[in-house]
Amino acid sequence: MKRKVTLKQIAKELDVSISTVSKSLRNSPEISEDTRQKVQAFAKLYNYKPNNIALSLKNRKTKTIGIIIPEIVHHFFATVISGIEQVANEQGYNVIVCLSNESFDREVINMEMLANGSTDGFIMSLSKETQFKADYHHITEIINQGMPVVMFDRVTSDILCDKVIIDDKAAAYDAVQSLIQSGHKRIALVTTVDYVSVGKLRTDGYTKALLDNDLPFDENLILKVEDIENCEPKISKFIEKFKPDAVFAVNELFAVISIKAANKLGFRVPEDISVIAFTDGIISMYSTPTITTVSQDGIKMGRKAAMMLIDRLESDDEDDEHYRTEVIETHLIERESTKAIGNA
Amino acid sequence: MKRKVTLKQIAKELDVSISTVSKSLRNSPEISEDTRQKVQAFAKLYNYKPNNIALSLKNRKTKTIGIIIPEIVHHFFATVISGIEQVANEQGYNVIVCLSNESFDREVINMEMLANGSTDGFIMSLSKETQFKADYHHITEIINQGMPVVMFDRVTSDILCDKVIIDDKAAAYDAVQSLIQSGHKRIALVTTVDYVSVGKLRTDGYTKALLDNDLPFDENLILKVEDIENCEPKISKFIEKFKPDAVFAVNELFAVISIKAANKLGFRVPEDISVIAFTDGIISMYSTPTITTVSQDGIKMGRKAAMMLIDRLESDDEDDEHYRTEVIETHLIERESTKAIGNA
Repeated sequence: MKRKVTLKQIAKELDVSISTVSKSLRNSPEISEDTRQKVQAFAKLYNYKPNNIALSLKNRKTKTIGIIIPEIVHHFFATVISGIEQVANEQGYNVIVCLSNESFDREVINMEMLANGSTDGFIMSLSKETQFKADYHHITEIINQGMPVVMFDRVTSDILCDKVIIDDKAAAYDAVQSLIQSGHKRIALVTTVDYVSVGKLRTDGYTKALLDNDLPFDENLILKVEDIENCEPKISKFIEKFKPDAVFAVNELFAVISIKAANKLGFRVPEDISVIAFTDGIISMYSTPTITTVSQDGIKMGRKAAMMLIDRLESDDEDDEHYRTEVIETHLIERESTKAIGNA
Repeated sequence: MKRKVTLKQIAKELDVSISTVSKSLRNSPEISEDTRQKVQAFAKLYNYKPNNIALSLKNRKTKTIGIIIPEIVHHFFATVISGIEQVANEQGYNVIVCLSNESFDREVINMEMLANGSTDGFIMSLSKETQFKADYHHITEIINQGMPVVMFDRVTSDILCDKVIIDDKAAAYDAVQSLIQSGHKRIALVTTVDYVSVGKLRTDGYTKALLDNDLPFDENLILKVEDIENCEPKISKFIEKFKPDAVFAVNELFAVISIKAANKLGFRVPEDISVIAFTDGIISMYSTPTITTVSQDGIKMGRKAAMMLIDRLESDDEDDEHYRTEVIETHLIERESTKAIGNA
């Protein structure tokens, strides 16, 4: 029995990256002639079969949607999947989920595997590593072969396809604006150290709200958290030193840890410090106090992405290159962690 | 182009259940002769192709593991997937996840789809509806065709296969025992109305701990919650009326809601009421007070299930019918929601 050789095996055998193998097989000029020849010879020798998606698409439909997400232990991605499932099941489609675990290689491997006859199209959110490398050739390849892709949340302008996003900048702006309107002047931003597009957009929204309200932009009030697991001491020191009157946290974990740290320092939430979190999840609903959040409606995002993909799969115009970017509205869910202060 | 007809389409067309179609195609005597003939004729007419798994298995390996879980917006299942991913990736396997959404039909459809050449074997946790119907023919079929299945958490003794479980009864017993040892006498059980095996086992463990310690079993102290979304008023009335000195909740949501309800009634946790939750998730870690839990180690469960499946996939003895049931140890993680009272 002859097993099918995969991109990954070729990469391992020749000690090059998966991306290099993939590009070599497409004869990309980015790769040296020498490497290309080596990869192609190896692939031929071991009977590597590239996907013949365009061909198989003409012949059959799988009625299956492939979802590629960075991680699963994350309420937001789980709700997006629920939304996709709802629409897919209504329309007679199955759904298959694969995780990239924030790894570029796993994203490439999973897409290769699913594209190989298991799905009609993809709904995906980019892994951190893919965004960092800005290498999207695997997605381009899939699209070129005639398989539609819809990106959500973590998207890139380097790829032409349908997208579903929230306006992260506007949403962050609104959250900070609401803190300013309720009398807060020293508003801290607790964010991630990241190259993920949404992180930067949220910081931009925070900054713009301050400037539009003639509040000073103070770099000391921005805390970039590297190690999520052990961030409480860092957040605690930050609050103790810079004494913000409000915290805008880019996720609910940072928000709940900020509340705990503030309490231990003797500050009350919301009396002394108001806290708003980005992303509405179960922590915000059940913490004490419950947390005011900017709601990213994951279900709605998933439903919209599924509708866009199915529209494209069932459209007669296979070459429709009019791609849309849908913006999902966010809204502030006011709970117990925010309060007007001073004369506001 | 002739599309492939699916079990679901046949069922819809003939207005029978998917299970009936599947059984008719296998000529099951459970189904009337008339229905069997109708289904078989229709399947033939529309070119229905059943899986030829045993055949395809001989010819190729997909190096892919299929996971079927009931739902994804659930921390426990998410951690099990992470555990499976870890081992699978270490061993060069990919992982595909499908959700049954607690529906029997979706479980059958997803398994049919994945078995059709996409995976080498399955790791699964049964949907509520499947457990309620006690219809496992789709799993039997997969196993009979030579594809290994490992069940975890929600398993059934009706199927012979490898299983990974926690000892729910012993874990519940230990939790209640620890409450009794710390002086509690009126221990309430907040549980689900369910036909899911684990719910019953946890209730058995609760009851046994009371009896072993000569504490009276009082049915009034057991609250069965039907509607998780709106259960706070019900839990609140229950606590007000029966005044337990401790609550053992079968999930962390019930625990955090019990704490909130108790607080609103003027009871302090843990001074007046101790609370223990089954399943350790992010709510327990970040609620105020943090919640003492019986930790179900999802990562460990997932890792063990993946090892068992891969062992079987890579074993030379394809007909090894010596199935194992591995029991994952639980342990109590003591946090702020429990406290010794009285003379304990």
